[in-house]
Amino acid sequence: MARGPDAAETRFDGRMIAVTVERWGDARREIVERADSVAIAAVIDDAIVLVRQFREAARRELLELPAGTVDDGEEPLAAAQRELAEETGLRGGRWTPWPTVFTTPGFCRERVHLFLAEDLEEGEASPTDGEAIELVQIPLDDVPDRVGEIEDAKTLAGLLLLLRRR
Amino acid sequence: MARGPDAAETRFDGRMIAVTVERWGDARREIVERADSVAIAAVIDDAIVLVRQFREAARRELLELPAGTVDDGEEPLAAAQRELAEETGLRGGRWTPWPTVFTTPGFCRERVHLFLAEDLEEGEASPTDGEAIELVQIPLDDVPDRVGEIEDAKTLAGLLLLLRRR
Repeated sequence: MARGPDAAETRFDGRMIAVTVERWGDARREIVERADSVAIAAVIDDAIVLVRQFREAARRELLELPAGTVDDGEEPLAAAQRELAEETGLRGGRWTPWPTVFTTPGFCRERVHLFLAEDLEEGEASPTDGEAIELVQIPLDDVPDRVGEIEDAKTLAGLLLLLRRR
Repeated sequence: MARGPDAAETRFDGRMIAVTVERWGDARREIVERADSVAIAAVIDDAIVLVRQFREAARRELLELPAGTVDDGEEPLAAAQRELAEETGLRGGRWTPWPTVFTTPGFCRERVHLFLAEDLEEGEASPTDGEAIELVQIPLDDVPDRVGEIEDAKTLAGLLLLLRRR
């Protein structure tokens, strides 16, 4: 059953995240508030399409599933289709909902909604934040050998889910 | 190559997390600082041992791999062995490092170090934070049918990694 805190105080209120200090009985919890996100295992021509981009929090480039934030009031599927089109130009196709999971439930309310997208059509990408995004196609046959270089949890889960479908 | 921010200002400095607003060229990033964590796929008697506990950030109970925070100066393997013993009483055994992944690299510096632990010995648990932790053993044969109920990213990745070993 869902429960809520006995008291909560916002201690940081930023553009993308907020921090609330909550009281749960005798316990004090520092909680990061953050909109949900989406991530897509996009398959085209027997390959999965990943994005390589610099991640400030990681201090380096990471190879990840295309992903993004769910806008206020937006359905996760619509957000996933929008983000995939923006980052890769891929659109249309057949979409399957995959698990929705908390990214780091010890202190953060964010969940990531995973999706599988197949039979996509190619189009023009339109990245929004001015960041350089490199598209990387990995043939499905090569995925087992490439899993070890993944440094992002949602991408690891997505590639492993993909391998289970084969 | 690793890079760093041009400027950074701490805006929240808590016990478990901190928030830094960083400037990277023209970009402004809100970054959560957080110690790394560990999570363990612990196999005993052809079953994996999970923990069910209330997670304030999720507002409900989650079923997860045993996990915890790496202490300052501690090696991830030592932290994993300590956390597993505390939460489940399991110790000894044969340990295999699994991938280390960022939990949510869009805004958070935390990585989780995954481990496989086998041939463990049973002992007394000693949970530290007064929280009720229920141990749940899932036979390896049942894991494929139980993956769909997992709501935590590291646990999803861990169960899928385990299934690949069979």
